[in-house]
Amino acid sequence: MTPQTEPYDYIHDGAAIYARSFAIIRAEADLSGLGEAEARVVVRIIHACGMVDVVKSIRMSPDFVSSARAALLAGKPILCDANMVAHGVTRARLPADNPVICTLRDPRTPVIAREIGNTRSAAAMDLWGDQLDGAVVAIGNAPTALFHLLEMIRAGAPRPAAVIGMPVGFVGAAESKEALAEFGDLPFIIVRGRLGGSAMAAATVNALASEAE
Amino acid sequence: MTPQTEPYDYIHDGAAIYARSFAIIRAEADLSGLGEAEARVVVRIIHACGMVDVVKSIRMSPDFVSSARAALLAGKPILCDANMVAHGVTRARLPADNPVICTLRDPRTPVIAREIGNTRSAAAMDLWGDQLDGAVVAIGNAPTALFHLLEMIRAGAPRPAAVIGMPVGFVGAAESKEALAEFGDLPFIIVRGRLGGSAMAAATVNALASEAE
Repeated sequence: MTPQTEPYDYIHDGAAIYARSFAIIRAEADLSGLGEAEARVVVRIIHACGMVDVVKSIRMSPDFVSSARAALLAGKPILCDANMVAHGVTRARLPADNPVICTLRDPRTPVIAREIGNTRSAAAMDLWGDQLDGAVVAIGNAPTALFHLLEMIRAGAPRPAAVIGMPVGFVGAAESKEALAEFGDLPFIIVRGRLGGSAMAAATVNALASEAE
Repeated sequence: MTPQTEPYDYIHDGAAIYARSFAIIRAEADLSGLGEAEARVVVRIIHACGMVDVVKSIRMSPDFVSSARAALLAGKPILCDANMVAHGVTRARLPADNPVICTLRDPRTPVIAREIGNTRSAAAMDLWGDQLDGAVVAIGNAPTALFHLLEMIRAGAPRPAAVIGMPVGFVGAAESKEALAEFGDLPFIIVRGRLGGSAMAAATVNALASEAE
């Protein structure tokens, strides 16, 4: 075979790829009934997962975007259940150099997990303390983390400004997200059912962080 | 409202959640025609995305699992296009304390990107050098990274032992994965079409890393 260095025809420019991607999404996805800010969030979630139909599974409270965006503008932290979520947040988009925090690998986490009889993902949240007050919480992995967060708030923990509830999978994911949506008086976004994941959760943060598409 | 601390009924034990998840996946997914090792990979990919139907989009070469697994047992590195992929690899499952490498945030990467006229994701691969020889490559984000990897190999770069080709999205993702599958003589797995992502790519590595489910 004769070596070739450029046999493939593809767009090499990152900004052009983003622009073309968002144009395809806006042409294909049914964004009717969404405000412009909500649509921006949905478009980024679609971009993260490659499925325009995911819009049908997204549900958010009317105050979600405004509450989450105000928190980010005020410099509040983004608290994540998984390191993959934290690493998916584009730091350059954040409006106030917001801290992006994941306590899953804190050495105290496995100790707390044994004490409370829950997963490490759930236990990690017990280390958030007062940082939870007015924060944006992004859960993209563990249903137990989302359930435990709701338990903590019911028990008197500080209230976050908004909760991105997008754990993925087959055991507890759907149920934990419905529990968030039904919690009441807590701004939220969920992807219903089994779908979700760290990429969608991080994409939601990235959409909220800047109005630039 | 009376505060309640444990209003939700859910499984708190991580191992039990994994076991139940994998049982549901094996009950629902059509794994016919797959060997046991291939099925383990597919089950973990399904677990990562919440979609049993993704099995229809997965294609792998007959030598993919054996070649990738031998590389991991030999201590070869896992080279990732995105930090989210690297952070999704469960270090405790790796058989030989394998290095997990992502060069996207190397300070040289944006310089190379300008030089070669490609994205930072593609440019980052030019820093892999001889580490590519016999490595497991996991691409879960950027089509340009997968295209550029194939260009590098055609131009004489060291050959990896296996390529996990799972960029996600609307521009170039499908095309780059078909190019990998058609490359010839390069063990591969792809998720066809727009689907993919860092979670699926990392799940593939985690499935290869240990036979424990």
